[in-house]
Amino acid sequence: MKIAILGHGVVGRGVDRIVTERVEGVEVSRILELPDRLTDPRMTSNFQDIVDDPEISLVVECMGGIEPAHTFIMDALSAGKSVVTSNKAVVAEHFGEFVSQANFSHAGLYIEATCGGGIPWIASILKARRIDDISSISGIMNGTTNYIVDAMVREGADFDVVLAEAQRLGYAERDPSADIDGIDVRNKTIIASSVAFDTTCTGSIPVTGIRTLTKADLDLFESRGLSVKLLGRAVQGDGRYAAAVEPVAVPLRSLEANVPSNFNLCTLVGTTVGELKFYGQGAGSLPTGNAIVQDILDFSEGRVPHYDIDTPKQYDPTLLTSDYVIRTSSYVEDSEPYAEDFEFVGGDRAFLLRGITAEKAHEAFVNVLDQDPSSFMAAIARED
Amino acid sequence: MKIAILGHGVVGRGVDRIVTERVEGVEVSRILELPDRLTDPRMTSNFQDIVDDPEISLVVECMGGIEPAHTFIMDALSAGKSVVTSNKAVVAEHFGEFVSQANFSHAGLYIEATCGGGIPWIASILKARRIDDISSISGIMNGTTNYIVDAMVREGADFDVVLAEAQRLGYAERDPSADIDGIDVRNKTIIASSVAFDTTCTGSIPVTGIRTLTKADLDLFESRGLSVKLLGRAVQGDGRYAAAVEPVAVPLRSLEANVPSNFNLCTLVGTTVGELKFYGQGAGSLPTGNAIVQDILDFSEGRVPHYDIDTPKQYDPTLLTSDYVIRTSSYVEDSEPYAEDFEFVGGDRAFLLRGITAEKAHEAFVNVLDQDPSSFMAAIARED
Repeated sequence: MKIAILGHGVVGRGVDRIVTERVEGVEVSRILELPDRLTDPRMTSNFQDIVDDPEISLVVECMGGIEPAHTFIMDALSAGKSVVTSNKAVVAEHFGEFVSQANFSHAGLYIEATCGGGIPWIASILKARRIDDISSISGIMNGTTNYIVDAMVREGADFDVVLAEAQRLGYAERDPSADIDGIDVRNKTIIASSVAFDTTCTGSIPVTGIRTLTKADLDLFESRGLSVKLLGRAVQGDGRYAAAVEPVAVPLRSLEANVPSNFNLCTLVGTTVGELKFYGQGAGSLPTGNAIVQDILDFSEGRVPHYDIDTPKQYDPTLLTSDYVIRTSSYVEDSEPYAEDFEFVGGDRAFLLRGITAEKAHEAFVNVLDQDPSSFMAAIARED
Repeated sequence: MKIAILGHGVVGRGVDRIVTERVEGVEVSRILELPDRLTDPRMTSNFQDIVDDPEISLVVECMGGIEPAHTFIMDALSAGKSVVTSNKAVVAEHFGEFVSQANFSHAGLYIEATCGGGIPWIASILKARRIDDISSISGIMNGTTNYIVDAMVREGADFDVVLAEAQRLGYAERDPSADIDGIDVRNKTIIASSVAFDTTCTGSIPVTGIRTLTKADLDLFESRGLSVKLLGRAVQGDGRYAAAVEPVAVPLRSLEANVPSNFNLCTLVGTTVGELKFYGQGAGSLPTGNAIVQDILDFSEGRVPHYDIDTPKQYDPTLLTSDYVIRTSSYVEDSEPYAEDFEFVGGDRAFLLRGITAEKAHEAFVNVLDQDPSSFMAAIARED
C-alpha cells in the first residue's frame, strides 16, 4: 500500500519514521514539501504529482493551517483517496464539507490526530456511540496550557515566567495565542462534540483563555479546595447542544486537578457505559505520529470511520450554566462578593456570578476586560 | 445474526436488554439457565441445544466460575462458534487453551468484559500493540476495593464498617475474599499482561490484598503525602516479565490516589504513545453489559481480535522491585524503622524494606502474618 505525506515537519517526519520502522506493507512513496526543502527523492513540491498518482490510496496531511490544507484535502477526497489529518483548525472549520465529500467519493476521513495527541479519543467517542447516546464530552485538551498551570502550581511561579520556560522547552509556540487564548481547545471541542453528537457543531461558542491567570488566582481557588484547568465542554439533550471553552475551577481531589505537565484528560458520558476518561500525552511528534499511524492501520484494515453529521441540532446556550468568579480591579454587575477576606495585589476583588450561561459569563467578562485587561474569569465545576 | 447467552443473571440480563433495545440485526435466540429458572421461551437448561444450533454463530458466556464455563467455551469454540466472555477466572486460567482452540477453529475469542468493566481496556492494549511494544501495564482494576479505600479516606471509617456498607449497596459480595484478597485483580492482571506482552503469563504471581488495611495505616501514609490503592502491575523487558498484585502507596496528587468510589483506572506504557490511562466504572451490569455488547458488535462487523501468545517469555521477579512498608506488632527481619514518630493503636510499628522484589516482600509478609494476622503491607510507588 502506498501513501503520501503532506508536510515533512516534526509530525510528518515522526509518521514517516514510525511507518518505515514499525508498519509492514505500507510505503511512504511521496512527500509534499516546499520547493527549497526537497531533500529526499520521494519529495515533490507539486501536489498534483500526488493526487494524479493512481498507486497512492491514502494522503496524510500534516501541514497545518487552513489553506492550502483545505484545498488539498478536498482534492484528495474528490479523487477517491482517503485522508488522514492531524490538522484541527481545518477540520473544525470544514468538518461537514469533508464528511460529505468523503461519503460521496466512498473515501475515508481519519481525524484521530486532531484531538488529544496519542489518546484514542475520537475512536473512543465513535466506539461508545455504537451503543450509547453521549450526553457530554469535556476535557483538558491542550498540553501547553496544562503545562503552564501545573508548573505555576508546583513551582509557585507566575504565568509569564512559566510561559517563557514552556517556550524554551518547545511546549509552547513562539506566538502562544492559539493555546493560551483557547482557540486550539475550541477547535478540538467542536470536532469532538460534532462526532459525539452526530451534528456539525458551530464554531461560534464562547471561548475564554488563561492569558491573565495569576499565582494569586490559583491561591484563591486553592484556599477553597479548587484548582484551575482550561477545559473544553459540550453537552446535548433533546435535539439541542451547547459548548464552551473556559478556565474551570475543579476540586483538588478530582482527576482533572491532578493531570501533570503537558498531559490531556478527555471525558465522555454515555447512557450505559457511564463516565469514561482517557489520559495521555496531548502533543509531541511521537504521540501525534502514533495517532496518525493508528489511522493509517485502520485504513489498511478496511475500517472506515462513520460520522453522522446530518442530524439537525440547535445550539442552545442555556444547556451550559455554572457559577462564575471574576477577579478584577473593575466592577462586575449583578454579582456578589466571592472572597471578601482574600487580598489581591493591586486591590483586585473577586466577584461571584451565580447560575449563568457560559455565553452570559463570556459577555460579562469581555466588558470587564475592557475596563481592566488583567482581569481573570473561571467557572466553578459542579460537584457530582 | 443469532446469538446465545449462557447465564441470565445481572450481567446476562443487561446484555439481553442492551442488545434488544439498542442493537439492530442481532437476536438473542437462546439463553442457558438452570432447570428451575426457565422463565422465557428462549431458555433451555441443555447446552447441547445451543452448540448444536447451526444458526447460532456467537455464544456469550456470563455464568462465571471455572466449570462448566470452561467446557462450554471449549465446546462452542470447537463447534466453530465465536465466544464472548466476561468470566475473568476462567480466562485467566485457560487463556492459552482458548486462544489455541479459537485459532484452530477460525473462531473469535472476545474478552473485553473480563477486565475493567466498561473501560475499553483489552481493546486499547490490542490497539496500542499494533504499533508499540508495551513495557508495562498497571492499574486499579477492582471496583469493590477502591470503593472501600475511598470511603475509608472520605468518611474516616474503618475497614469492616465500610465493607458492610459496600455489601449493603451491592458493591461487595457476601463472601468478599476474591476482591479484598486480590484474586480478582490477579486474574485481570494475568489476562491484561498476557495480551500486552504476547505470551501466556503465569498465575503464580505474588498477591497481597487489603483485608488488614486500617484507618491508621491510611493516616500514616497520608502524613507522608501518600494514599493506598490495590494495584495490579506487570512489566516486561528483554524477553522476561514480572507481575504482582499488592497495596501500593501512591502520591496524593497522582491520578490513582484520586479515583473515587467503584471506578477503575488502567495504565499502559508504549514505545511511541507513552503513558495512556483509561478510567471508568469497573463493574456493574450496564458497564459490563456495554463491554460485552461492544464485543458482539466487533464480531458482527467481522473484527476478530488477534492474540500472540506463543512468544516464550520467562517469568523474572527481579524486574519488579520497590520499597515496602510493613505495619505489625511482630518484627520484620532486615528492615529499618519507617515511622518511629507514628503511634499505632496496640503498639504496632512500621518497618521499611528497601529495594526488594514483590516476591521477596510477599514472602516476608507471609511470615509476619503468621505472627500477627492483623499486619499490613504496601509497596511505595516510585515517583517518575
